[in-house]
Amino acid sequence: MNETEFVAALRKLPLHPGARGLEDDCAVLPVGGETLIITHDMMSEDTHFLSHADLADVAWKLLAANLSDLAAKGAEPVGVLLGYSLGSSDARFLEGLDEALRTYGVALMGGDTVATTGTSTYGMTAIGRATHLPVPSRKGAQAGDAIYVTGPVGRAMLGYEGDEEHLSIFNRPVPRLAEGMALAPLVSAMMDISDGLLLDCWRMAWVSGVTLAIDSAAVPVASQARMQECMRWGDDYELLFTAPEDAALPVAATRIGTVRAREHAPLWLDETPLPDPANLGYRHG
Amino acid sequence: MNETEFVAALRKLPLHPGARGLEDDCAVLPVGGETLIITHDMMSEDTHFLSHADLADVAWKLLAANLSDLAAKGAEPVGVLLGYSLGSSDARFLEGLDEALRTYGVALMGGDTVATTGTSTYGMTAIGRATHLPVPSRKGAQAGDAIYVTGPVGRAMLGYEGDEEHLSIFNRPVPRLAEGMALAPLVSAMMDISDGLLLDCWRMAWVSGVTLAIDSAAVPVASQARMQECMRWGDDYELLFTAPEDAALPVAATRIGTVRAREHAPLWLDETPLPDPANLGYRHG
Repeated sequence: MNETEFVAALRKLPLHPGARGLEDDCAVLPVGGETLIITHDMMSEDTHFLSHADLADVAWKLLAANLSDLAAKGAEPVGVLLGYSLGSSDARFLEGLDEALRTYGVALMGGDTVATTGTSTYGMTAIGRATHLPVPSRKGAQAGDAIYVTGPVGRAMLGYEGDEEHLSIFNRPVPRLAEGMALAPLVSAMMDISDGLLLDCWRMAWVSGVTLAIDSAAVPVASQARMQECMRWGDDYELLFTAPEDAALPVAATRIGTVRAREHAPLWLDETPLPDPANLGYRHG
Repeated sequence: MNETEFVAALRKLPLHPGARGLEDDCAVLPVGGETLIITHDMMSEDTHFLSHADLADVAWKLLAANLSDLAAKGAEPVGVLLGYSLGSSDARFLEGLDEALRTYGVALMGGDTVATTGTSTYGMTAIGRATHLPVPSRKGAQAGDAIYVTGPVGRAMLGYEGDEEHLSIFNRPVPRLAEGMALAPLVSAMMDISDGLLLDCWRMAWVSGVTLAIDSAAVPVASQARMQECMRWGDDYELLFTAPEDAALPVAATRIGTVRAREHAPLWLDETPLPDPANLGYRHG
């Protein structure tokens, strides 16, 4: 099975109401008058990082990717659990994790450590506290809403290719926690851009039952010459959100399009309908 | 690093108060008047299961191992998140997970799916609700307490070796959830036996600052002829606990020894002090 098929099969298992039908990035769990946000992300050698990668960066990215999911829910981090495969560079992993935890003021709550014989896989569960109800989801974009991103896309792509200026954004992405908390009260839908702007726009449109019409000229990209690639590359971890046209935004963001009633394609790029998510971004498996 | 060294290094990172110093199996998180119990366990191909294992059993065991950690805290399961490596037997994994979730009345809350190139690693985060405060821990055994187990050890060993009678306990272990909830109000310390009775007794004694004196003749074992091995093999998932001598137990359990003030060894087996955890059970990494 590929990832899409597997997740479709998971939806037939007993699902918790907080699972949001496995259509969102996080689970939402009301507990004793508060609401927790829980997410789990994994990184695998060869798939998410190269075998010669500095594990300090891998640890940072693992935390950042999880916190980015919390950011998209407007959640404040509470703690994380680590699932770790012992290997040859454990000390570097610990250094990077320590630095990342201290940078974001997050504490380790527990986890598990295993010896593996093959490539390494790391998992992390992040727990946050919702700062606003209802908790934003991917689902909720309304016809007439404006579409925004919190920053340029394509920087991670350039960093991956070795561009000095963008290396740090690839190795040590920044979860938009403050932005997510500030935006939560006014967005109609929000998610982080982990797999590519166009693919994530397609997904938001799909679950919201609307069409997202993107104006490519308005999209902030790291390289104008490679705009198409920038819109399809992942790992930038900016926030994508929709909000009513007249909403006063509390953070810097760039408007990149308008939500329309569902047409035959959930995504339009300029005057081109994009009915199929293939080739819009990074798809696992 | 081996697992012990890695966990020691993790203790130098910023820890959440609910991490219990990484000396317990679960994190304990008070949220708005309730208390959540959170645990994360992993299983790796070649280390925890063979490459030809039925992934339906692996999925069951992954859930059971996590629920067993909740059981030792007297927690009632709320839901789980799955970290999954796509492979060749995904359908079997899903069948086993579905069956296990329905058997224990647990719902899936979310997770992540990755494509991996090497051996598979699966992770699961289980979330439960404490049914009794304070939440039992490994730490808390008191001199004078009696030591108990909820059932025989060594059955998983015999099942692993192909003994038909014990095959199901190896492939599909049973988390002692009801027992854990019933025992939580009266135990001074409790943990599940995942890595071997003697090793887990040693660990409980170590963190409690006491000595556990075990009477081997009293230990319920699956094979009297192989008593020493039964006490060192893991995967049985019975509960090990200590309680005051006069406590009336609400569930069936066998007394296997007495807690004493700390002597030079944290564990005594009959008249033999066992100062070192080596060779007492299964140690990872």
